[in-house]
Amino acid sequence: MNIIKYPKKEDWNEILKRPNLGDDMVNQVVPEVLNDVKTNGDEAVRRYTSKFDHVTLNDYRVTEQEITEAESLVDAELKRCIQIAKQNIEKFHSAQKTSRKVVETTPGVFCWQKSVPIEKVGLYIPGGSAPLFSTVLMLGIPAKLAACNQIILCTPPNKEGKVHPAILYTAKLVGLNQIYKVGGIQSIAAMAFGTETVPKVAKIFGPGNLYVTAAKQIVAMHGVAIDMPAGPSEVAIMADNTCVPSFIAADLLSQAEHGADSQVILFTCDEKILPAINKELDLQLEALPRKEIAIKALENSKAIVLRSIDEMLEISNAYAPEHLIIALDNAIEIAELVINAGSVFIGNYSPESAGDYASGTNHALPTAGYARGYSGVNLDSFMKKISFQQLSKYGLFNIGPVIEKMAEAEQLMGHKNAATIRMNAIINES
Amino acid sequence: MNIIKYPKKEDWNEILKRPNLGDDMVNQVVPEVLNDVKTNGDEAVRRYTSKFDHVTLNDYRVTEQEITEAESLVDAELKRCIQIAKQNIEKFHSAQKTSRKVVETTPGVFCWQKSVPIEKVGLYIPGGSAPLFSTVLMLGIPAKLAACNQIILCTPPNKEGKVHPAILYTAKLVGLNQIYKVGGIQSIAAMAFGTETVPKVAKIFGPGNLYVTAAKQIVAMHGVAIDMPAGPSEVAIMADNTCVPSFIAADLLSQAEHGADSQVILFTCDEKILPAINKELDLQLEALPRKEIAIKALENSKAIVLRSIDEMLEISNAYAPEHLIIALDNAIEIAELVINAGSVFIGNYSPESAGDYASGTNHALPTAGYARGYSGVNLDSFMKKISFQQLSKYGLFNIGPVIEKMAEAEQLMGHKNAATIRMNAIINES
Repeated sequence: MNIIKYPKKEDWNEILKRPNLGDDMVNQVVPEVLNDVKTNGDEAVRRYTSKFDHVTLNDYRVTEQEITEAESLVDAELKRCIQIAKQNIEKFHSAQKTSRKVVETTPGVFCWQKSVPIEKVGLYIPGGSAPLFSTVLMLGIPAKLAACNQIILCTPPNKEGKVHPAILYTAKLVGLNQIYKVGGIQSIAAMAFGTETVPKVAKIFGPGNLYVTAAKQIVAMHGVAIDMPAGPSEVAIMADNTCVPSFIAADLLSQAEHGADSQVILFTCDEKILPAINKELDLQLEALPRKEIAIKALENSKAIVLRSIDEMLEISNAYAPEHLIIALDNAIEIAELVINAGSVFIGNYSPESAGDYASGTNHALPTAGYARGYSGVNLDSFMKKISFQQLSKYGLFNIGPVIEKMAEAEQLMGHKNAATIRMNAIINES
Repeated sequence: MNIIKYPKKEDWNEILKRPNLGDDMVNQVVPEVLNDVKTNGDEAVRRYTSKFDHVTLNDYRVTEQEITEAESLVDAELKRCIQIAKQNIEKFHSAQKTSRKVVETTPGVFCWQKSVPIEKVGLYIPGGSAPLFSTVLMLGIPAKLAACNQIILCTPPNKEGKVHPAILYTAKLVGLNQIYKVGGIQSIAAMAFGTETVPKVAKIFGPGNLYVTAAKQIVAMHGVAIDMPAGPSEVAIMADNTCVPSFIAADLLSQAEHGADSQVILFTCDEKILPAINKELDLQLEALPRKEIAIKALENSKAIVLRSIDEMLEISNAYAPEHLIIALDNAIEIAELVINAGSVFIGNYSPESAGDYASGTNHALPTAGYARGYSGVNLDSFMKKISFQQLSKYGLFNIGPVIEKMAEAEQLMGHKNAATIRMNAIINES
């Protein structure tokens, strides 16, 4: 890790810059694939699956038989663990349900908001080296709790045209049964525009690489909602001399192993802890199968020494990390002052991997500073709020003159008349 | 209005199509202006203000003096009405506050979600023919209730370099004091990227024309959140023979007067009501100052006759209108079955203009079918939810093995180790 001591505030922006993810290929390839799938549907999906995933699939919907087969391939212990994680995630997300509150804003004027499930949602589960069945839990469980009517799942096939059994097992456990073996840009296009096989959805969720993220952002300009733009994973840790250096090193590495573009940052006001953490990093790195990836990620990473806990808090809020671990003596107190972060882990016994898998919180979180304006995925992400109002005659009389005056001042006489005509009718009745 | 009787379901999509809003100029002009402001800051803002708003402003921040002057120009009756509307909007949005619920998902594992205000938000209030001071209420009030730290407001100047007094009065009443006389694409760029004068914000709110909407969608790809893509206003009405034709006509016209591209749709299963509504439309049109605009909008508009209330509900949900007025005998019952709409107005005495101004609900709502996946602006729009977790040693022991097993199955051994190393330390302690 690069150690930066007592940086001046005017240099923070530069120091906190995320690795640049620009890639000219993205701007070329993504719109091309999106348009092709929009125009040519399944035929284009199959063509890109051949090209990018190196397998040709005529029917790319996962069959009942494939799911049954997958169930038999997942070991019992892993199944039990996934079930426990599911219970915790369900508990946490169920608590996010809100009840309707009818507000009588003026006598006779009743207004309320109602959470209504988004009818059709699409979940994207990336492929790649590891089978991210935990993401199936994180997206599938709140979608089911929200009671979305149609939940589809897209995930790329491997070269044999198969999906990892743990993904299929988890999908079935959660209650998802519309699963398509399609990945990358072509899957985002299929969910956004619909094909003969894949239904068009109203909102697309899920992490992905540069291409998938760019595809999500572009379809968001054409009628579909997206959960958030997702970038490489990142963690920031605030630590003082009450931290356990081996824990800190383990947390830094657990983020660094995600990818060479992952970013890990350590904030401390106690530079004496750094040698022990560095020593632990070296030691633990040796045992890590994804050592090469982690080493690359650590090259982008920084230990920043600051003057006070207040300054640590300020710089962390400026950075807006996806994950923030607070390993400080007064961690709970400081947690209350966090303004920008995706998910916060308090104290020495709350590793980030708890939230990744099993504590119950969601791991689909805003990266790249998006935590300044975005929430992570939660129950609300699968609902939209509709407002309702009902005015009695008395209610209309109470606010009618206000409507009339304001509409007139905005030069919208039709708006005014919609109140006037009703008030006149009520007067004529009586 | 074009009358369409008993359309086949397979034709619904075609019938419900929104007017095409394509404009090649948008794709050219918007990226150019955004980049220019990003690079050249205030200088570019001033240049585009000269070009598009036909006025040259050196300092485009609204002064205290301008606000004081504006206050004296708004008549007392309008002030009183704006204050009443403010009270109702505050009441309705205050009721949306949620409290923190700590969930112990597993013994010793404590998780919670906390709503935290978005630190810096930007509100856009369009200029044009009418001063939309009501939108200042709709965006400013929830921003203040959410306790956003910095709330800036951009609105275009007129040719004299002034902002309409009602806008400035309302901004002051709501408690906004950072107001900039800048509109259009250049204002979105200024808020997204920051200039010497305008601070960069994390989320941008507010309606606008095609250019403003495109600008919002593009900056949303570069680190800023936006409330929603906003298109031309629209209303759908479900009516049966218990409706009052003059009220229906007034509501249709109140939407049609917004702009030639506004869309108004009437669903009914009782075609006998149509002649009376048409007669009322002609009558009321005559008295409307914005008659020419309304006539154009009505050309795009449709009265669709359906076989049953169920079918009306189904087609309305497929259309996903911004505003939905339910003028049916069993309006309350039917309202419960609405899946896709921005805001719903129940019964004969709830005109859409009530929600536009004074009932308390928000009028910044998803158009163009976006109600399928988006909420209208509400208190939550100005907050993001951060998740927190704290595990005791006991809690970590309870879920540690689950974390280990799942991380291993995802081939993320660093994630596993962050749990293992802590569990080992606890064992060694005891």
